[in-house]
Parts: sequence; structure tokens; C-alpha cells
Amino acid sequence: MTLRRLQLPAVLALACVFAAPALADEPPALSMGELLESSSPEDWREPKPEDTLYLEFDAGRVIIELAPEFAPAHAENLRTLAREHFWDGLAIYRSHDNFVVQWGDPGAEGARRSIGSAHDALPAEFERDAQGVAFTRLPDDDGWAPEVGFASGFPAARDPEAGEAWLAHCYGMVGAGRGMEADSSIGTELYAVTGQSPRQLDRNITLVGRVVHGIELLSPMPRGPGPLGMYADPARNTPIRSVRLASEVPKDERTRVQLLRTGTPLFDAVVESRRNRHDDWYLRPAGHIDLCNVPLPARIVDGE
Amino acid sequence: MTLRRLQLPAVLALACVFAAPALADEPPALSMGELLESSSPEDWREPKPEDTLYLEFDAGRVIIELAPEFAPAHAENLRTLAREHFWDGLAIYRSHDNFVVQWGDPGAEGARRSIGSAHDALPAEFERDAQGVAFTRLPDDDGWAPEVGFASGFPAARDPEAGEAWLAHCYGMVGAGRGMEADSSIGTELYAVTGQSPRQLDRNITLVGRVVHGIELLSPMPRGPGPLGMYADPARNTPIRSVRLASEVPKDERTRVQLLRTGTPLFDAVVESRRNRHDDWYLRPAGHIDLCNVPLPARIVDGE
Repeated sequence: MTLRRLQLPAVLALACVFAAPALADEPPALSMGELLESSSPEDWREPKPEDTLYLEFDAGRVIIELAPEFAPAHAENLRTLAREHFWDGLAIYRSHDNFVVQWGDPGAEGARRSIGSAHDALPAEFERDAQGVAFTRLPDDDGWAPEVGFASGFPAARDPEAGEAWLAHCYGMVGAGRGMEADSSIGTELYAVTGQSPRQLDRNITLVGRVVHGIELLSPMPRGPGPLGMYADPARNTPIRSVRLASEVPKDERTRVQLLRTGTPLFDAVVESRRNRHDDWYLRPAGHIDLCNVPLPARIVDGE
Repeated sequence: MTLRRLQLPAVLALACVFAAPALADEPPALSMGELLESSSPEDWREPKPEDTLYLEFDAGRVIIELAPEFAPAHAENLRTLAREHFWDGLAIYRSHDNFVVQWGDPGAEGARRSIGSAHDALPAEFERDAQGVAFTRLPDDDGWAPEVGFASGFPAARDPEAGEAWLAHCYGMVGAGRGMEADSSIGTELYAVTGQSPRQLDRNITLVGRVVHGIELLSPMPRGPGPLGMYADPARNTPIRSVRLASEVPKDERTRVQLLRTGTPLFDAVVESRRNRHDDWYLRPAGHIDLCNVPLPARIVDGE
């Protein structure tokens, strides 16, 4: 009893601690933690500084990797907006429980900030030609798309018949809010997914990237009242200090984040370690994983 | 431009505002909001007071419906613990980003609270005989289980071959933390799912119920550091004022929550309204819904 009660608070996430005993001819099944420990430097990549946004607010730095392969026009507008300090002093103004946190310009009509030299109209970038996308398919079934997997490290989907590929609304993905018209987003109002993957939004709105570090600073924003999660009282908005391209930040002020490459044997092994957990805590491995349950490991490294 | 920019902040959740034009011989497709407005009192049910827990802390009241149909021994122990005020003055001590919030006794070994007359050992209640479970199947594919759907208003799964049914780890579901042994949970340490549905936990741990009101008070808890999301500094724990069975609370202090019945034509219409969004904002209805994306509508009503 004593030992059991001691263990109780630490119950749920012990998945990486114990490796199951191996069968005679099989290598031992490694946990994700063990696999990452065994990784080599080539298993990791660093997002390009010109594709990396730092969203800074009192709680810290949120790092977003842009996805110009899927949303080139939006990525370019976001770079312009960041270079011209569009978001500085604006706010996080929406936290919709089990859905999204959103930031940008909370100003009322007539009080909105100039977008400077950014474009005031962009094409919808909901999907793209699948040709040219290095897509690593996840073999598991998915109800939302014919195929799901990873492209350039982002969760993605593909329709081989239509020849289209698109990004998927998993936790941490960042999109560009739009109005009723498909092409009404310009990137000023961004949202990050902070709840159950709203895959119904796939191909209905332009995804521009993913939070690769610091999502846990955005996800606990107090929820706004009402169906949209907007704060009724502007005093509840969270001020944004700045949004910068990493390439515009002095090197010694950058955060070196590294992301595990997808489409490698090591990544496949990580997925398998989560599809079937072999540590002792799990009694019944699932034998399946959903796209949005696949972890995309990141790590911070020191120095330039 | 003016109108579009005004709309930008309110972009993502307009799903219930506009109904699509109907084809000549079809009734108009209604949104979830319209369907709920058209509901009659019989479409709603109220959880039994003896199956309802009020978790009270500074931010307010979280209401949990127990699931004795699936976890009778745990439900009974939870009732005992609540009647004897076990959790009063204890704490929410864990917030693991994109996973769970957990509460109970954060005391170190030797400093743990007595469980009073509650049982100190319970059977694992991971699944049950599917016989006797009124299971309404969701027709959509699911990768984690042969069949998914709803049972007594809870998200659930079923294996017709094995003749087993179990509750599913969707957002808001509440489970009983355990140690390494399957039967090591006694209900003192509870968790609520606050992230992407961790369905890999299904049939690996006992689910005891669901947060039916107030999950948005639990989900923004600041995330704890480290892989488990525990707060390293006990000062960051959130004190629990009390946990009570609604049946032990004076009637005029109860919150009357009503839940939309599952397994009804209205509920099926609600699911369809989310499987294929027909309001003007959505350009491409998904034609699919995952179990854990199905909303389980709740409302608060006045009076006894």
C-alpha cells in the first residue's frame, strides 16, 4: 500500500521509463526517450531563421516555424509584418477552450493598425499540388483524409487521386484567421490550436506553420466567455511585446531549437514506440496512432 | 477591405450562424445551435445527484458526472471519499500540457491523508461486458477501436467480437490515476483530459466519469515543468475548497446542469451538423467526425 500510494501522483506519463523484455530474436523495443537519447546530430534539423517567428510576451518566447512550402504568400506577408513590427503592442485576445488561442489586432473598426507594406489581399492557401512534396505516410487509418503523414516536419494529409496535399490542424498548428471569403486572410490575425485537433478546418483556412517551442505558454490563457472565446473586457487581453523573425534578431539573442527530422528510420521508430507502448505501465498497446497524437520532438541546444 | 478586416478577429467559430440554402426536396441543414434551439425538454437529462461531483476551488465549480455503469466500484469509492470530505484542502498539483490536469493528495510519503472508510483496494475497471450497455454507434471510422459511439452520454467504444465495451479518453473525461499495477487506483488521485484525446490510455486505466460543466476552469492551469507536468514548487498547487456529491449539497446550492441525450434523432442530427458543416463559412464539409470531436451539449437551467 505504501509504495502504491506513493506512486499514485506520478501515474500517467511513465511511458518512457521501462522497456519491455525482448523476445529472443527481437531487439528490445525502445521508448521514445531511449530512442531520442540514441539519436545522432543528423537526426535533427534547425528551422531556417527566416522561417522562424519569435512571439514575445511577459510569459516568455513562443517559437513558430513557418511553412512556406504550403503557404508561400502568407509566409512572405508574415515576414513583412514581423519586419515592420506590426504586432508589437498588439494582443492575444482570444482563448477558446479546447480550440484555439488567437492574437493580432483587437482594435475596433477605425482603430486598426496599418499593415504597412504588407499585402492587403492574399490567395487562399488551403492545399497545394502534391507533386514536389516529400510526404512520409503514416500507415494508420485516418477518417479525415485519404492519407496522412508528415511533410517538412509538419503534420499533413494527401489525396493521391486529386493530387493535392495540405497541412493538418493538429495541436500547436498556427493558422491565419479569415472572414467569410476564402481569400480574406492576410496573416495579421493568427491562431494556434490548443485543443482536440479541429481537423474539420483542414482545407477551409490557411495554415501557416506550427508552434515548435513554448505552446505551453499560450495554451493556459484564461478562456474567454461566450462561444468564440473572445475576452469581453480588453483588460484581459495579453499584450504582445513583439513578434520578430529570428533572422532579424541578433544571434546571441536567438533560441536554438532543433526538431527531430521526420521521414527517417529514427522517426519511424519513435512513431512505433508511441503506437505500441512497451513500457510496463501499459498493459494493452493500442496498435494504432492518430496523426495528431504523434509527438514531434523538439529540443533546445546551447550556443550558436 | 473595411468589412473584411472587421470580421477577422471573429473568424473561426462562426459555424452556427448561417444555414446553407436547401435543395428543393430537402429540409434545410440546421446548425448545432439551431438544432438545440429546436429541442424539447425530453431531449435533455439531468445527471443523478448521487452521480454528480462538485469540485470547488477559487475559480469556481467544476461538475463531474460519474459513470457507475462502467466503473461501479470506483464510483462508490468516490462517493465515500466525497461524503467524508477527503479532498477538502487538498490540491490540483499537475497540469501536463496537451494531456491532463490532476488533483488529489500532493503529500509526500508519510504525510498523506487518511482515506477514512473508503476502500484501499479496488478492481481495475478498464472495460465491461458489452451486454446491457445501450450503445449508440457512430458510423465514422475509428483507428483505436472496432466501434465507437456513446453509452449513457459518455464517449465509448465496443468490441463486438470480444463482447466488451469501455469508456474513451476524450476531452473532459475523468480517470483514476494508478501506479504500475492495474488494480492500484482507488480514486483519490483524479485526472481530467485537457488535450488531444489520449486514446492510447483506453483500457489501460479506469475512467470514472466526465466533466460536464466547468472544464474551462481546469484546462488553463499553468503547465508544470518536466515531463509529467507536476509543479515542482508546492506553492503553485491550486487549493481545493471541497469536493461534494450534489446529493449532499442543499438543493438551493446545486447547479442544475442538463445534458443533451445521446442516442436520439436530435443527437444524430447534431452529430451530422458537425460532420458536415453547412454554414457559409465552411467551404468543404469534412464528411467525417472523430468520436472525440463530437460535442456533448450541456446547459445550465435555473431553479429546482
